[in-house]
Amino acid sequence: MNASEFRKKGKEMVDYVADYMEGIEKRQVYPDVEPGYLRPLIPATAPQEPETFEAIMNDVEKIIMPGVTHWHSPHFFAYFPTASSYPAMLADMLCGAIGCIGFSWAASPACTELETVMMDWLGKMLELPETFLAESAGEGGGVIQGSASEATLVALLAARTRVTRQLQITSPELSQAAIMEKLVAYSSDQAHSSVERAGLIGGVKLKAIPSDGNFAMRACALKEALERDKASGLIPFFVVATLGTTSCCSFDNLLEVGPICNQENVWLHIDAAYAGSAFICPEFRHLLNGVEFADSFNFNPHKWLLVNFDCSAMWVKKRSSLTGAFKLDPLYLKHSHQDSGLITDYRHWQLPLGRRFRSLKMWFVFRMYGVKGLQAYIRKHVQLSHEFESLVRRDPCFEICAEVTLGLVCFRLKGSNKLNEALLEKINNARKIHLVPCHLKDKFVLRFAICSRTVESVHIQQAWKHIKELATQLLQTEKE
Amino acid sequence: MNASEFRKKGKEMVDYVADYMEGIEKRQVYPDVEPGYLRPLIPATAPQEPETFEAIMNDVEKIIMPGVTHWHSPHFFAYFPTASSYPAMLADMLCGAIGCIGFSWAASPACTELETVMMDWLGKMLELPETFLAESAGEGGGVIQGSASEATLVALLAARTRVTRQLQITSPELSQAAIMEKLVAYSSDQAHSSVERAGLIGGVKLKAIPSDGNFAMRACALKEALERDKASGLIPFFVVATLGTTSCCSFDNLLEVGPICNQENVWLHIDAAYAGSAFICPEFRHLLNGVEFADSFNFNPHKWLLVNFDCSAMWVKKRSSLTGAFKLDPLYLKHSHQDSGLITDYRHWQLPLGRRFRSLKMWFVFRMYGVKGLQAYIRKHVQLSHEFESLVRRDPCFEICAEVTLGLVCFRLKGSNKLNEALLEKINNARKIHLVPCHLKDKFVLRFAICSRTVESVHIQQAWKHIKELATQLLQTEKE
Repeated sequence: MNASEFRKKGKEMVDYVADYMEGIEKRQVYPDVEPGYLRPLIPATAPQEPETFEAIMNDVEKIIMPGVTHWHSPHFFAYFPTASSYPAMLADMLCGAIGCIGFSWAASPACTELETVMMDWLGKMLELPETFLAESAGEGGGVIQGSASEATLVALLAARTRVTRQLQITSPELSQAAIMEKLVAYSSDQAHSSVERAGLIGGVKLKAIPSDGNFAMRACALKEALERDKASGLIPFFVVATLGTTSCCSFDNLLEVGPICNQENVWLHIDAAYAGSAFICPEFRHLLNGVEFADSFNFNPHKWLLVNFDCSAMWVKKRSSLTGAFKLDPLYLKHSHQDSGLITDYRHWQLPLGRRFRSLKMWFVFRMYGVKGLQAYIRKHVQLSHEFESLVRRDPCFEICAEVTLGLVCFRLKGSNKLNEALLEKINNARKIHLVPCHLKDKFVLRFAICSRTVESVHIQQAWKHIKELATQLLQTEKE
Repeated sequence: MNASEFRKKGKEMVDYVADYMEGIEKRQVYPDVEPGYLRPLIPATAPQEPETFEAIMNDVEKIIMPGVTHWHSPHFFAYFPTASSYPAMLADMLCGAIGCIGFSWAASPACTELETVMMDWLGKMLELPETFLAESAGEGGGVIQGSASEATLVALLAARTRVTRQLQITSPELSQAAIMEKLVAYSSDQAHSSVERAGLIGGVKLKAIPSDGNFAMRACALKEALERDKASGLIPFFVVATLGTTSCCSFDNLLEVGPICNQENVWLHIDAAYAGSAFICPEFRHLLNGVEFADSFNFNPHKWLLVNFDCSAMWVKKRSSLTGAFKLDPLYLKHSHQDSGLITDYRHWQLPLGRRFRSLKMWFVFRMYGVKGLQAYIRKHVQLSHEFESLVRRDPCFEICAEVTLGLVCFRLKGSNKLNEALLEKINNARKIHLVPCHLKDKFVLRFAICSRTVESVHIQQAWKHIKELATQLLQTEKE
């Protein structure tokens, strides 16, 4: 395929994409296929001879689309949103064409420098303390990671390196393995599974701190764990505080937890994967109060800030604490500017070596929406979740299970877990909307997350009416 | 921006991309900018109000392009290739539109199932042993990782889990930390820096095995290290063999190393990041002989198989060895099919949770090129590298520093390292072509890698003429 054919097919693809987005509401949000559906529809081996673009596009509708869960349908209320916007898609096309691998400054200076500046832009939108910004006189800065899981792991590894180096000075009799055996990390029992996984990968203990009645990590529970562990000879080194948990969008108490971490010389990482985007609105910024105590902070613009996956924004107060954990410099990656102090080689900030020119997506989205446009988008989602919340609250058969702060509503039928499991099954089997559940303490709960960029009040009303109907049927059957 | 505006701007972007690719040869391959060039050209904060697409595209040419290293220029011979093709770009547009996050089967069945089948297609193109294929009766299968670094780390972590579990049964007196302290991984001294980094992250020792005169890891050196370490109480558990090293594209001796790993119950991971693509050609397949001894195998279609970044293909003989190392199942990710044995939840195969619909790129590229088209592409690059090799060999001032097997030529002026450093500096300062160096044993060597999809004999001849001229000037100055 040459450039002139690409001009033609590329424009057909643009139209296909626009058609898909315009027609998505009419597609069934969750597919009917059974596991293994696809293999019989596809040849067992790659073709020897080239096939046409048209043949493939036919198969997209015939083979792929019937197996797609449509995350951008206004009937999709599962998990958390994943971002999708036209400006981000346009930027991604450009990113694919430039196709540079920005592991070092020299590998494509624009790729590195735009990222640094975009992370400053975003940091300012959140009113992050200056110490996290690269333009400040401090030692901080931001980097785009692939996912919040990677950010948590990178932070844990940096913290592990920091504490190990400190201990090797103060307690030279301890071997590295002896240190590793004593290290303990902490998160709330509501933290994302990726935190537990980071502990597994890093080879350190991870302890879950019992959350309070509002599903938040509080000072007393953390302190108790720290004291108990220190008394038994362990070394606390890392705490993950979550702002906007996956289960119910609860918030750990940063203003309590932060000072303790600082006093105890424990690295504080904040995971605000979903909720972070909301902090660009002044009325939600208070949820981030206490970030000044953190060593690292992360959230995913690829969830709720209209920047298509992947774009996970991470800031650290000390660049050297990341680079110190990873820095290895083979000759084929050295370049003449790298010791100037002016430049950033992002390969030292992340797990993989390769990286795409992802900051283009931020640049396009921030400029084409403007801060006001992005704020309006967040506010609309929050308003819709409150709309759903009030529908639930008005119905005596249902209950709200956690405070609704942003775009997630946790609710259930008053009654047994079994009843609610049956309701969820009915909802997802009907295929009109898509939800996933969670456990809150011992309760089986339905999560209603405002996800799609194009979701409107009418979809919320339809969804509620549908849920209500299925619930009425279910309660009817129960009675009979 | 709505769908109808996207139809218009998207088509403008398609034309911009086509223009960029058609005109890339005329752009200076390596930029003139100095560190910090970009920040003064961009506002200090994001705009409050929306800006137009046109304003941004103006800035792309004014601010971004002057700082881009053009990886797809036919004058780019640095690092290794990074893939770029129109079919992959078309697929990426579709991937962006569907925008699903395929962490589990249910999150988008098509995303998971196409990946499994595409990995089988690719495995068959390479004639991988059946045990690595998901369609076989065995326990193997493939997964797309983000990068070879991640694949190496995932393999190391799976191997660490496997050996730890085995030892906890056979030597229950050993604590996990005591085991970690004894674990040793190995790779050749020519292995990529990501291998050393995987050791750092995994908290295990990594030892470099001295390579032989052809920069290959051989049986005797590996055996010696294993015996010495076992004698001193250490536990060898992981070997990375490299096929196509970054420095000089040398090949570890799999047929020697493989059986030793199997005898010693050591996990063998093969990293063929660059070279792997060539194995789709029957005449290069012998370089992969011995893969049958491996537990895991990885290469990057995003380097040399025309699938744009990121797409790193990894296969394992036992799926359960990966998933066993990572599996955590919170309720919001559970779904009704997951225990059927028929389905794959790829989140258990990788470090991050989120993942894009990357197999679409493989599907488009494999079908629009056909296997024959892909083979022709590989062969053309290999032919061009031999063309450059013979130009170098014909010149008595120069020497070839390592066997030229695929698309990389390592060469230098006969003479001191200083002389060759001066030559490289002259070449890169002239900005007509772009190269990076490597060290082979103690020699400073220039790497000439065939990279661009559009590079032709004429570019090789121009590049050599240019290098020759600069070398002649340099030798002249030296004499004076």
